[in-house]
Amino acid sequence: MTVERTRVAIVGAGPAGLFLSHLLAEIGIDSVVLDQRSRSEIESTIRAGILEQGTVELLDRIPGSRARTVGHRHDGIQLRFAGEGHRIDFPGSVGRSVWLYPQHEVLQDLIAARLAAGQDLRFGATVTAVTGVDSETPRVTGTTADGTPFELLADFVVGADGSRSVVRPVVTGSSTGGYFREYPFAWFGILCEAPPSADELIYSNAPEGFALISQRSETVQRMYFQCDPHIDADALSEAQLWDTLQACVPGTTLTEGPIFQRDVLRFRSFVAHELRRGRAALVGDAAHTVPPTGAKGMNLAIADVVLLARALEEWLGHGRTELIDAYPETASRRIWKAQHFSWWMTSMLHAAPDASEFDRLRQLGELRSVVESEAGRTYLAEAYTGWPLETGLTAPVG
Amino acid sequence: MTVERTRVAIVGAGPAGLFLSHLLAEIGIDSVVLDQRSRSEIESTIRAGILEQGTVELLDRIPGSRARTVGHRHDGIQLRFAGEGHRIDFPGSVGRSVWLYPQHEVLQDLIAARLAAGQDLRFGATVTAVTGVDSETPRVTGTTADGTPFELLADFVVGADGSRSVVRPVVTGSSTGGYFREYPFAWFGILCEAPPSADELIYSNAPEGFALISQRSETVQRMYFQCDPHIDADALSEAQLWDTLQACVPGTTLTEGPIFQRDVLRFRSFVAHELRRGRAALVGDAAHTVPPTGAKGMNLAIADVVLLARALEEWLGHGRTELIDAYPETASRRIWKAQHFSWWMTSMLHAAPDASEFDRLRQLGELRSVVESEAGRTYLAEAYTGWPLETGLTAPVG
Repeated sequence: MTVERTRVAIVGAGPAGLFLSHLLAEIGIDSVVLDQRSRSEIESTIRAGILEQGTVELLDRIPGSRARTVGHRHDGIQLRFAGEGHRIDFPGSVGRSVWLYPQHEVLQDLIAARLAAGQDLRFGATVTAVTGVDSETPRVTGTTADGTPFELLADFVVGADGSRSVVRPVVTGSSTGGYFREYPFAWFGILCEAPPSADELIYSNAPEGFALISQRSETVQRMYFQCDPHIDADALSEAQLWDTLQACVPGTTLTEGPIFQRDVLRFRSFVAHELRRGRAALVGDAAHTVPPTGAKGMNLAIADVVLLARALEEWLGHGRTELIDAYPETASRRIWKAQHFSWWMTSMLHAAPDASEFDRLRQLGELRSVVESEAGRTYLAEAYTGWPLETGLTAPVG
Repeated sequence: MTVERTRVAIVGAGPAGLFLSHLLAEIGIDSVVLDQRSRSEIESTIRAGILEQGTVELLDRIPGSRARTVGHRHDGIQLRFAGEGHRIDFPGSVGRSVWLYPQHEVLQDLIAARLAAGQDLRFGATVTAVTGVDSETPRVTGTTADGTPFELLADFVVGADGSRSVVRPVVTGSSTGGYFREYPFAWFGILCEAPPSADELIYSNAPEGFALISQRSETVQRMYFQCDPHIDADALSEAQLWDTLQACVPGTTLTEGPIFQRDVLRFRSFVAHELRRGRAALVGDAAHTVPPTGAKGMNLAIADVVLLARALEEWLGHGRTELIDAYPETASRRIWKAQHFSWWMTSMLHAAPDASEFDRLRQLGELRSVVESEAGRTYLAEAYTGWPLETGLTAPVG
């Protein structure tokens, strides 16, 4: 077995791992990125993508990023309740916007850019163990795509390997060690062939349940409605799906079309008990999961990575440990604000199965308080478009 | 039995009933105010009093109101959590303030002013029945302080008689007919002889539970801590009470002194299913109850009364029914915003007995989101100091 050496071993080639490898390369720290999936599997996993303005600005550092050219800038969202729509104007409230750009497109950009830059990026590489994180030289072992065992020595190991992370148990002491909340509903998502039903995303609170009317392109749309988490995704006919969606956005008419994909998204909130142990740390979904209502998932992953890259530059580049020691606390501040925002949007917009009439009317009172108040709209908009990132990043060498 | 006649029969001589009689007198509509309690009982019932700026401006219409002279203007509150205090600056955020002026002082002012103005105000008058609200002439029957039966015919009957209203069942069809929520905690309140521990109110979120540090005067203070609703108010020693209070405001030191009153305040949210039926309507606690955390109780009562006075002026004075027909809907808008705000302050600041570690950390993430954001602080401040009142009141005749 070959024993190899790198500065930073990054487990996971999602947005967090790939973007981290870019930031480390910018400051001259070499890394190896390992993912057990194939390139085509990674590039075809369809996930929603609302990018905060700060995330898009960071992606501008990636040569060839299409976030601004293929992605669509959205200057607002609509909150619907009691049969009426209320627009939250992002530039008007906070001077920022978001971009609708699906995650798999971000991944295609990142993979192409990293490979073009000569990144050591290994698909189909299964990590079976991470050891020695309390020593000077942690070790990542596993098998490559063709079944050959490998062993990688590093100065630091990063778990960027999603919600079923193999690095997380090494950091937290158990695979489930975290703060956790489950929700009594899920999202039923569809992809359909139809023109857009609206220019901007519609978040609708209705007695029948929540719906999110999103867009994908001029001819393909993404829509979701609140459902029982145990629903059988194939049990409903297309007509029933459209009836349910229409019922959840009273007062507006959806443009229907053939539904060619359907899936059920579970709702969970999770934060790992520990974000770092010795020479290992967690970022992105390996560190935390948010329900999708706040559109925070990928953005929070990128925010973690910015903090960790800066901390590794200080430690591995200059021997200063302040930032890496502070990483769990610094990252947690944004994580818990994002957890709150995701919980808030979820609880304000969904019909909880055990909600009383009081709860339902209080929810409408809350929605009215938010949309009738400039401060309320701004408070929501600044969270949705993203709190400022204090990147402190070294300027790219160009 | 004497049968008497008035334009408006007001049941209840609390802030709502008394202030309504003043507004009606301003526009030349005579009324009778009935309360089963004695004057001294009403004037000595100690209740907290945070007056919104709009409430104080309305009380300025009352000759001799001491809200501005004896009451204390408060330009902010402190939110405490994680061992640190964060001030919400009211004038800086919304250009408004609140006044700390206990409810029994408001009542003393109102009773003196109404009696001086010749108001027909009857203490010790027990209302036993309200009938005929669907006819042209509703009828209030009962017994006076000396046990003499009375019968009062009116154009309109107002239930301003608090949470155990006798008018409510006439309007809603049952004494409990409403939207309801109970909370798994209560407030343990004390009055003590001590100088103030702080210049402004402190709302403290601590792992041990919520506390509110309030003031009454230079020598008497009012403080509360979260407790089990079934607690025996006499079971704790003074030393235990101080230990509990201190534990709920970590990082600050309370000035202790002899505790001379202790009481337990139940937490409920309630809104009557109906606010009007024919020639009867509900205002104040007869229409709704809020938990005390948002300091909305008396202010919401006054807001109801302003709407109802205007509606009665239009109907009884000019025969126009639009405003009285709209009263339930118009009043409900503010009521449900206030219900939401009271629920929000309660849920953000208290330690729910069944809260998970996730819930507790999310709560801290929420508090941090609010205090770190100018929009968040403003959103809270505008609710606390009171949303604008669209009074539309006829100017007082002077």
